[in-house]
Amino acid sequence: MAHLTVLISCKDKQGIIASTTNCVAENQGNIVYIDQHVDVHEKVFFMRIECAFKHQDSAFRFQEQFEQGSVKRFQMDYEITSDAHKPVMALMVSKYDHCLYDLLGRYRSGEMDVEIPLIISNHKDLEPIADAFKIPFHHIPVRSENKKEAEDQQLELLHSHSVDFIVLARYMQIVSKKFLTDFKNSVINIHHSFLPAFPGAKPYHSAYKRGVKVIGATSHYVTEDLDEGPIIEQDVVHVDHAHSIDDLIIKGRDLEKIVLARAIKKHLKRKVMVYNNKTIVFK
Amino acid sequence: MAHLTVLISCKDKQGIIASTTNCVAENQGNIVYIDQHVDVHEKVFFMRIECAFKHQDSAFRFQEQFEQGSVKRFQMDYEITSDAHKPVMALMVSKYDHCLYDLLGRYRSGEMDVEIPLIISNHKDLEPIADAFKIPFHHIPVRSENKKEAEDQQLELLHSHSVDFIVLARYMQIVSKKFLTDFKNSVINIHHSFLPAFPGAKPYHSAYKRGVKVIGATSHYVTEDLDEGPIIEQDVVHVDHAHSIDDLIIKGRDLEKIVLARAIKKHLKRKVMVYNNKTIVFK
Amino acid sequence: MAHLTVLISCKDKQGIIASTTNCVAENQGNIVYIDQHVDVHEKVFFMRIECAFKHQDSAFRFQEQFEQGSVKRFQMDYEITSDAHKPVMALMVSKYDHCLYDLLGRYRSGEMDVEIPLIISNHKDLEPIADAFKIPFHHIPVRSENKKEAEDQQLELLHSHSVDFIVLARYMQIVSKKFLTDFKNSVINIHHSFLPAFPGAKPYHSAYKRGVKVIGATSHYVTEDLDEGPIIEQDVVHVDHAHSIDDLIIKGRDLEKIVLARAIKKHLKRKVMVYNNKTIVFK
Amino acid sequence: MAHLTVLISCKDKQGIIASTTNCVAENQGNIVYIDQHVDVHEKVFFMRIECAFKHQDSAFRFQEQFEQGSVKRFQMDYEITSDAHKPVMALMVSKYDHCLYDLLGRYRSGEMDVEIPLIISNHKDLEPIADAFKIPFHHIPVRSENKKEAEDQQLELLHSHSVDFIVLARYMQIVSKKFLTDFKNSVINIHHSFLPAFPGAKPYHSAYKRGVKVIGATSHYVTEDLDEGPIIEQDVVHVDHAHSIDDLIIKGRDLEKIVLARAIKKHLKRKVMVYNNKTIVFK
Repeated sequence: MAHLTVLISCKDKQGIIASTTNCVAENQGNIVYIDQHVDVHEKVFFMRIECAFKHQDSAFRFQEQFEQGSVKRFQMDYEITSDAHKPVMALMVSKYDHCLYDLLGRYRSGEMDVEIPLIISNHKDLEPIADAFKIPFHHIPVRSENKKEAEDQQLELLHSHSVDFIVLARYMQIVSKKFLTDFKNSVINIHHSFLPAFPGAKPYHSAYKRGVKVIGATSHYVTEDLDEGPIIEQDVVHVDHAHSIDDLIIKGRDLEKIVLARAIKKHLKRKVMVYNNKTIVFK
Repeated sequence: MAHLTVLISCKDKQGIIASTTNCVAENQGNIVYIDQHVDVHEKVFFMRIECAFKHQDSAFRFQEQFEQGSVKRFQMDYEITSDAHKPVMALMVSKYDHCLYDLLGRYRSGEMDVEIPLIISNHKDLEPIADAFKIPFHHIPVRSENKKEAEDQQLELLHSHSVDFIVLARYMQIVSKKFLTDFKNSVINIHHSFLPAFPGAKPYHSAYKRGVKVIGATSHYVTEDLDEGPIIEQDVVHVDHAHSIDDLIIKGRDLEKIVLARAIKKHLKRKVMVYNNKTIVFK
Repeated sequence: MAHLTVLISCKDKQGIIASTTNCVAENQGNIVYIDQHVDVHEKVFFMRIECAFKHQDSAFRFQEQFEQGSVKRFQMDYEITSDAHKPVMALMVSKYDHCLYDLLGRYRSGEMDVEIPLIISNHKDLEPIADAFKIPFHHIPVRSENKKEAEDQQLELLHSHSVDFIVLARYMQIVSKKFLTDFKNSVINIHHSFLPAFPGAKPYHSAYKRGVKVIGATSHYVTEDLDEGPIIEQDVVHVDHAHSIDDLIIKGRDLEKIVLARAIKKHLKRKVMVYNNKTIVFK
Repeated sequence: MAHLTVLISCKDKQGIIASTTNCVAENQGNIVYIDQHVDVHEKVFFMRIECAFKHQDSAFRFQEQFEQGSVKRFQMDYEITSDAHKPVMALMVSKYDHCLYDLLGRYRSGEMDVEIPLIISNHKDLEPIADAFKIPFHHIPVRSENKKEAEDQQLELLHSHSVDFIVLARYMQIVSKKFLTDFKNSVINIHHSFLPAFPGAKPYHSAYKRGVKVIGATSHYVTEDLDEGPIIEQDVVHVDHAHSIDDLIIKGRDLEKIVLARAIKKHLKRKVMVYNNKTIVFK
């Protein structure tokens, strides 16, 4: 059995679905998932298809025919991934441990079909957790005067492990343009507010000061504009006047964990497409 | 322009999507929505497609070819509806007014693309609301000794107005097998609990007694088994020890209104398919 | 029976609760609700007590003793209201009808213990709804050149009906400083976003553009700073890439209705205290 | 500084709050939390007070006077706990690891002010997790023929560690009447459905079969009636037709973790009182 996930985007036209699904059918493939979206303002078509082929050969033939046929005809941008490849995820952390505990717990439970070959941190505080879960921990201090060298070291490590995407699990440093070019739409951050409210540092303090009745968390792809990247997942929880800032921080942790885990799972299953600084998140 | 919604179910096989979408493309149709679901245990395939045709002629041709081709080949059950037909909805109520106010408010706001030619009630209490919204109100008392006659009268009224589906907006009577045969999967009820918890009468009282921390509402198609029909929509709200039964009733009202309205909208847009006493609710 | 609600704020000190509850007990009052809050940064104490007295006389005596005793001793700000007075609420609307339908439906259902003697609007569109619910409707056009005169007319009407508080049920005009001085902490607005995100006009458009995964609504007391008044109630609903701006608007309506209704009920029951541009909302 | 939490229940009468808060004030105590509840049907009064005393002496004197005064006068049931005592919690698990990972992560993060001296399990599967978190793990197999001996062993362990309460973190065995007598209202279970729907085994399977649109989790005190103990906390999450049973199980895990953690925290902070097989959960 070969299982492929196909992501497509192109100018919206008649016949795209027929052309693509025909190509699957002609190669004895079975479509197990299909969903599409049209940005009606921009007239752009997006589609996600999962298909199962009895033999690897048919999957290859499908891919070839698809690239020669539909892709050329509709000038598609596309991405085909096979279930045979298990994605490789790196974690970057600083001092907060809740997201790290949560992700490693899920990882060990087998909840996420991913490999985690390394954890990188600018502090040593969380090394014991990495040890407990038996995952290599790399301490790379980041200071204003060594920022470039530190990042070079990080990138070398990430590339040497063939990392597919990076999760900033409360990593408290800004990553550079070069970093984001190497990992385009592949650096996932968790921000502890419902963006666009309370960007930047100390959102729980700002939320307390403003007296909001909900606090939130936002997971998004990192872009050069701080906290303005495409949003993958958001959620909120109710609070009231009796919550101190510390209460907000503790309540917020559960949100951060869940919102980040959901975003990672969607990314892992290739359910997210990025367009115009927004995401299409297929269900 | 002609806009069709096609609902399909059949035994799961390769090529169903290709065959159907081809037929749309060959008739210059544009697919604006496609979603499918496979019941993997029962190996049954379900699909919902919306397609837009530039001319009524193409839509007719599509329907003809589709019925001759895909439908025969895959032995499909199918239903094609055109946006040209505005569904006709009847409301049946008793004494509670909150769902009635809510639905008529939405109706007048233009939020639901439907016609409401009549309201039927076994009590006179809500007639002034029908009058305020200028919708004909039919008072048909239901007593144990006249149940059959009353229902005959109801059915005559419903058929004479070519009613497509019926909403029991807190209608406190059980409808008969005959009624349900005439309107199969077309009688929508709102039950004031998160079924299967607290079926039957007085669910808020039972919820209070059990000390639950959430109360719910469930909208479902009515079947002969009381409160056991296919669930279309459910939601809950948090409560605590300080809520009296009356508080639960008042809190529950907002849920009932919203859950019922959501269910009706999904039914209206042909997003609901029924299978094995469950629903597939396309997004 | 006399039922009083007492709201207290003062500098935090030992003995405030004992002093106040003693005074209730000495006058044969029964405390049916007590809740307090301390702003630990500002060292300010807030309390809400409901107490029931068998006779009106005891209630009077309590109030006298309380004012002479606890209030003086702790230099309290306080407010005592009796259930005997039914609050008077005015509605101000423009063209959107959903909040108006919702509030009048609740009003007629007896869900809100309030009087609504008038509806004021700068447009004539919603007059038929007011008529259907048999509530006097006053059309006062507001244009840039007659703003002051229009507001004088509004205030005269509001005062002549002894209005206690005003609900802007999607009223699309800014009210003046004078207006807010006459009705301090008594003008409740519904804003269609989760503030502080998306203040100002067209928040659903901004939410669409930013690609957020939740949209919200916020009910707050109006202050001179647009959309920056003390927040009473907020809630959100999940959305995704498939929602058009119109979908957001329709989804948002249900939120606006519920968030506004909840805020009004809390205000009605004297559960809201304002301090430092934030609210304490007792449960 | 001495910080006491006082839980009171007695027949509802005038003057209880005044009497109690006087006693605090007379001993120079500061009330930092007060909340009460009256079961109006049963006429029972419940109160929770937290008070801070500058000196341990004053706290002792308060307790003495309170017991001699208010407690006698109103025939109170009461419980006074000091912040000086850190509660001792035992975990009992079987094979599912998600709740264990979650709780130990929170424990290590310092989120729960508790001691965990031991984990007991009827299987060896989760021992490595206990080891990673450096918590003693006791494997006590439970078979039909050794049930009593196994439980005696468990109880001996629990008592020897002066355990205050026990959390069944997906422990898949029924505990005996004796066990529950030793730990009355002190055994917290997590059930993977929104009770009273789907009690017993395999609730996710039942939820799938019924086609519900929400699934839930319930944390409750264990009583002799399986899944019928007083509910502490419940929550739900939305699901749809596309979720397989495995999807429900995975989605449910996040709920189970959070609902159980919330229940434990409330128990820890002495916020829960049990009455009539229901809970009063102070905020």
